[in-house]
Amino acid sequence: MTKRTKKSEKLWGGSGLDSRIERYTVGNDYLLDLRLVPFDCLSSIAHARMLGKVGLLEGDSVLALVDGLQEILTLSRKGQFAILPEQEDCHTAIEQWLVDKLGDAGKRIHLGRSRNDQVLTALRLYYLDALKTLRREVAGLATTVGRFATSHKQTPMPGYTHLRKAMPSTVGMWANALADSLEDDDVLLAAAMEIIDQSPLGSGAGYGVPLPLDRAMTARELGFSKVQENPVYVQWSRGKFEAAMVHACGQVMLDLNRVATDLVHFSMEEFGYFELPPEMCTGSSIMPQKQNPDVLELARARYHVVVAAETQLRSTIANLPHGYHRDLQLTKEPTFRAIDATGETVAIMDLVFQGLKVNKAALEAGMTPELYATQRAYQLVTEKGMTFRDAYAEVKKDLGK
Amino acid sequence: MTKRTKKSEKLWGGSGLDSRIERYTVGNDYLLDLRLVPFDCLSSIAHARMLGKVGLLEGDSVLALVDGLQEILTLSRKGQFAILPEQEDCHTAIEQWLVDKLGDAGKRIHLGRSRNDQVLTALRLYYLDALKTLRREVAGLATTVGRFATSHKQTPMPGYTHLRKAMPSTVGMWANALADSLEDDDVLLAAAMEIIDQSPLGSGAGYGVPLPLDRAMTARELGFSKVQENPVYVQWSRGKFEAAMVHACGQVMLDLNRVATDLVHFSMEEFGYFELPPEMCTGSSIMPQKQNPDVLELARARYHVVVAAETQLRSTIANLPHGYHRDLQLTKEPTFRAIDATGETVAIMDLVFQGLKVNKAALEAGMTPELYATQRAYQLVTEKGMTFRDAYAEVKKDLGK
Amino acid sequence: MTKRTKKSEKLWGGSGLDSRIERYTVGNDYLLDLRLVPFDCLSSIAHARMLGKVGLLEGDSVLALVDGLQEILTLSRKGQFAILPEQEDCHTAIEQWLVDKLGDAGKRIHLGRSRNDQVLTALRLYYLDALKTLRREVAGLATTVGRFATSHKQTPMPGYTHLRKAMPSTVGMWANALADSLEDDDVLLAAAMEIIDQSPLGSGAGYGVPLPLDRAMTARELGFSKVQENPVYVQWSRGKFEAAMVHACGQVMLDLNRVATDLVHFSMEEFGYFELPPEMCTGSSIMPQKQNPDVLELARARYHVVVAAETQLRSTIANLPHGYHRDLQLTKEPTFRAIDATGETVAIMDLVFQGLKVNKAALEAGMTPELYATQRAYQLVTEKGMTFRDAYAEVKKDLGK
Amino acid sequence: MTKRTKKSEKLWGGSGLDSRIERYTVGNDYLLDLRLVPFDCLSSIAHARMLGKVGLLEGDSVLALVDGLQEILTLSRKGQFAILPEQEDCHTAIEQWLVDKLGDAGKRIHLGRSRNDQVLTALRLYYLDALKTLRREVAGLATTVGRFATSHKQTPMPGYTHLRKAMPSTVGMWANALADSLEDDDVLLAAAMEIIDQSPLGSGAGYGVPLPLDRAMTARELGFSKVQENPVYVQWSRGKFEAAMVHACGQVMLDLNRVATDLVHFSMEEFGYFELPPEMCTGSSIMPQKQNPDVLELARARYHVVVAAETQLRSTIANLPHGYHRDLQLTKEPTFRAIDATGETVAIMDLVFQGLKVNKAALEAGMTPELYATQRAYQLVTEKGMTFRDAYAEVKKDLGK
Repeated sequence: MTKRTKKSEKLWGGSGLDSRIERYTVGNDYLLDLRLVPFDCLSSIAHARMLGKVGLLEGDSVLALVDGLQEILTLSRKGQFAILPEQEDCHTAIEQWLVDKLGDAGKRIHLGRSRNDQVLTALRLYYLDALKTLRREVAGLATTVGRFATSHKQTPMPGYTHLRKAMPSTVGMWANALADSLEDDDVLLAAAMEIIDQSPLGSGAGYGVPLPLDRAMTARELGFSKVQENPVYVQWSRGKFEAAMVHACGQVMLDLNRVATDLVHFSMEEFGYFELPPEMCTGSSIMPQKQNPDVLELARARYHVVVAAETQLRSTIANLPHGYHRDLQLTKEPTFRAIDATGETVAIMDLVFQGLKVNKAALEAGMTPELYATQRAYQLVTEKGMTFRDAYAEVKKDLGK
Repeated sequence: MTKRTKKSEKLWGGSGLDSRIERYTVGNDYLLDLRLVPFDCLSSIAHARMLGKVGLLEGDSVLALVDGLQEILTLSRKGQFAILPEQEDCHTAIEQWLVDKLGDAGKRIHLGRSRNDQVLTALRLYYLDALKTLRREVAGLATTVGRFATSHKQTPMPGYTHLRKAMPSTVGMWANALADSLEDDDVLLAAAMEIIDQSPLGSGAGYGVPLPLDRAMTARELGFSKVQENPVYVQWSRGKFEAAMVHACGQVMLDLNRVATDLVHFSMEEFGYFELPPEMCTGSSIMPQKQNPDVLELARARYHVVVAAETQLRSTIANLPHGYHRDLQLTKEPTFRAIDATGETVAIMDLVFQGLKVNKAALEAGMTPELYATQRAYQLVTEKGMTFRDAYAEVKKDLGK
Repeated sequence: MTKRTKKSEKLWGGSGLDSRIERYTVGNDYLLDLRLVPFDCLSSIAHARMLGKVGLLEGDSVLALVDGLQEILTLSRKGQFAILPEQEDCHTAIEQWLVDKLGDAGKRIHLGRSRNDQVLTALRLYYLDALKTLRREVAGLATTVGRFATSHKQTPMPGYTHLRKAMPSTVGMWANALADSLEDDDVLLAAAMEIIDQSPLGSGAGYGVPLPLDRAMTARELGFSKVQENPVYVQWSRGKFEAAMVHACGQVMLDLNRVATDLVHFSMEEFGYFELPPEMCTGSSIMPQKQNPDVLELARARYHVVVAAETQLRSTIANLPHGYHRDLQLTKEPTFRAIDATGETVAIMDLVFQGLKVNKAALEAGMTPELYATQRAYQLVTEKGMTFRDAYAEVKKDLGK
Repeated sequence: MTKRTKKSEKLWGGSGLDSRIERYTVGNDYLLDLRLVPFDCLSSIAHARMLGKVGLLEGDSVLALVDGLQEILTLSRKGQFAILPEQEDCHTAIEQWLVDKLGDAGKRIHLGRSRNDQVLTALRLYYLDALKTLRREVAGLATTVGRFATSHKQTPMPGYTHLRKAMPSTVGMWANALADSLEDDDVLLAAAMEIIDQSPLGSGAGYGVPLPLDRAMTARELGFSKVQENPVYVQWSRGKFEAAMVHACGQVMLDLNRVATDLVHFSMEEFGYFELPPEMCTGSSIMPQKQNPDVLELARARYHVVVAAETQLRSTIANLPHGYHRDLQLTKEPTFRAIDATGETVAIMDLVFQGLKVNKAALEAGMTPELYATQRAYQLVTEKGMTFRDAYAEVKKDLGK
């Protein structure tokens, strides 16, 4: 029978750490980690079962640990599992809960793993879950937009280049461009997922573990497609995999940045092509007449949140030798920020497209003659046999340009 | 006598806003704004007094408002002034508090201003306060480092280029480089401050206010050096001034990134030149022997937080026509993040330099002969009259290179 | 019979353009475009044949154009096809050459296309070619590194975390991490290629072309997997596809950044684990003893060239409505820069790994006892039945930490 | 009498360098350096004179070197001084020219300096020169814009927020915002200049020079305000000073990005507020009617060139220990790119403002009633004594919002 761990103790037994240093190093990890609790529990359950199977943990302990972890899962689902600042992160909080509850069994859970591979396992399970959700929502948005495109397939719309009237277009073609782009984004989201979908569990601190672990078993239990065999590569990929995911998010966000810019622009009263319903508009504190498209402006601006997150990831992990550095901890926050910004914006733009009004009359009024100049040149070619360059020159001359 | 405003009402009278849109547009503003409460109160006090002076507000109302605002200041200092999500931001929370408490007087405070100039006033007062503090702390760190340099003025240290031994240096020279660099950083911090130090109050939504406001009076009361006269320029500068400040923070952080990298590197046991005291080191969850310099690694990584914040600011505000856009709201969070990261890291590095141990024996052992090769070439020049190029070639040949 | 076009005339018939404006808008496009000449010729050949097939161009003209374009291809291969600044870009230079040589036939080549889709076609053909080459070279590098790993499979190497000795590793494991990472990079390179591999030809200025073009035919002739059907999406994807490609390049470069950092670091004489052969080292202008790893430092630094290129792409195209803007022209230069930096660095690192020396004696000397502390804790668990936490604590105590 | 140096020899005597490594390390330095030739000559003249004064170089040699360097200055001014790829950079080319011409005297010029401090000296002289020019041109642009503002002081212009009509503005107020902003940019340009304005010459490779150099004399001769005393700080500041300069350039470019966006936007025919003269517009290769504002779009896009340059600088130099690394060489190209982009864009926007037409009729037509809603609310306050909140609500109700 062993003494219970004190709440404030660290996984690494630290107790003499200067409190200002502690606060600085912990940062807001204990808050960020709340979303990782369920994934860390699943990872620990798989780890415990594997330890049992390979004979490094007795059956009783395995059962006790699995029960305990499932209890934490339930608490977490109810929002009742807290992480204290002095616990640093979810991994410590969970292990301490297990030690408090189960004594020795709790003190056996960390055998054969390091916090390094444990963190990565929880993060990747979370990322894969988030990517799965995101891909579903992006597909949903593409469907909403496609539906919108279909119902405005024939609605004319001036096509602009350089923000000057160029050639005839349609609302359907415009909306379908977004839908097509979102579909292609899935190629990158899927590629990010493919890269992330390999189990880091069992790679220890980045140099393997001198115990007969069954890494294939934990990978299988956790739903990973394969084991990331090389432990050095496991740490090597931290931040890099995140960058791939955040990049893919950024591509989705670019689509939304563009369409939001279009909508802010073409719903100006000078165009009046589109209209946001009043329940999506906000007013001004000083000007009584205002109906502002804040939602679109924020969707546009959140693109930059995601791009900056990728920039941050990519410079944080650069110019460093291989092996874990605490710098890598700071890849978590920008990644979460990017995931959140993307998910929220995809959802809100779905709503926008559901409510968006198309002003057919204004669009038709916008279909002015200069949009058909190219067509006239083509007529000179097909009907009069002129070369294109000569036809072009003639139409230009006619227009007085 | 007027009815009290319902808590959930917006400054712009909105009530029909879709709740999902509302959540998306508010984001975490209501949390971020907590630090702005005191500055917004000071700004409103000056505004109320000015309205009184120019005859747009009766004396009683001025007094009532000033009293109310001072009560909020007190509450805020005690951490007892909350901002509800449905209030969006501190400005709404404060106005609603005033309306609840004072009735009509509260409904008069927003005369002659827009939330746009109000936000900017509170932000700039906060920025100037933060910059003042930061400059003091940076100067303090330079002093600490300078003291450290003085006590190690003669301690030899190998000078490296390309991470290869180059020429003799000293611990004092190394530390003084940091001190000098921090001093030069103040030039940029001061320049950022100079730019920010102009009062936006009274510029309304970006096009002025058709009332006889006394902008010079509010500027003076709030301690601004001058009025930012052109209202269009006021909105134009949003995000741009922030970028200047964050850039200056980033220069400070680069110094700390460099010195943290040096310390992580040269405290490796293979060098042993420096040593962090144990109370500044953290351990490992798997490896019992570890004493890790997490604090330095996080200081290094936080540089990238600040740089990414600037990147985010600078792309968020680009490619947009003049005039306020809600995108500008998203300049707040990265700016706050950069200020916090910089302030915390300056403080922690001061602590590090107070505790840092210098291992003179290891440094002396590092002073190997090749560091003196240039000196030998110079002797051939000054003693034997050789040209530098020939002397260089001869020493190189002697070294078998 | 028509008059020949003057050399200085533009595709759009401009002649009155202010010369300073012209210089500013052309920039260095006429130089950048040299690498696009062959791809633009291939694209024009396919376009001419298609025009012939659908009856918009007579057989003679098709033959003349194809012959002319093949002559340009030959000239370009020999470095004899120049683009003059006043021609702006390769597209104008090629059309003018054709008009000069063929008269009317040359003036017919631009029928049914815009410079917009023409530029995109040439660019994508170039990108696909560059990506194919890059993937082959990255695979080649992975093979070289894998071979290196195999021959050093058993060579011990200290594993570091936080740049502190952590656990035993091997040179083979380290090198294989790089090889594995490069192989995963191919997932992203392939994804970028998949997205880019769709034909823009026939989409005109972004709103389609009112002529019965056979877009499937040109796509097939040019080797594209499919047609990018939606013309609005074609322009929408400009810069975005580039960002995907440059991102994938950046992942490769991150691997090389890391391994270059490792090599600079661990070839310091204080470690001596690795050694660059003298023919890969450069010296100093002042210090006769220096053998510097400039090649590695530049490989490391070129990562940032590629990351910055992505950043530039992603902010240049943001906050803009759909449809072509001249801003998009500036996506070309950073993309080329990123492609070049990546290709050159992959090739040079292949050379480095071919010449790299491993100093086994130094590595063995580096295998100090603390690397085995975790192993000792595991022995206490497996041999004495201690819990991991208690074993960890005991070893820590023994080490006096 | 000594043998002449072979052309292909390096300053560091290298001759066995692998040619592929050489090409990779030299990159395009030999081209970039052309602009540094005059500054390197000036620096070498000052250095030679100083060596003479402190007795390290005989009078004859000083005279010969100064004459030789002045001859190079003349050649460079005529575009007749070339740098060969195998010479790597301007410093080698100049020294080799001197050795070829003067024999022993040429071989004495590098005494007491390293290429490290030599490069920095030439760069800083160039930067200071470029900043001086830029500040003058920015001031010139502010004057042009201010003149434009004066002549349109009373021309009404709708003021927008969220791209929705907000309140009345004027063309003069809009243009003056730009002028004011450019004036404030000078604060940052001046701050960058102040930091850069310290002489690195005499700091050697970053650890000083063991010879009795007179650093104050060379600083004075070269026009630097002071000596950068600490040699470690000299190398420490490389890239960092560049970042400060490029940041200031970026602030100027942001102003131009904004105003270019405004002009593209408000010269759309749907607004017609502004008009670019035809000699500043370009056409389309397919659409005969087009008059495109390419010059404005490229000015807008070049902002991102400058911002990306800063991003590249700031991540290239991060996470590295102190002391020179070859990575720092790659700070040159993005800095030059940023300087060029800024200078060219300032000049071109001056031209734009000289030619810009203001369409008063369209602007007046844009002054629609909703722009005066705030004014009406203020009337209710000042004339009827309503609280602002109640007046606001009443006007809003009247407008049916």
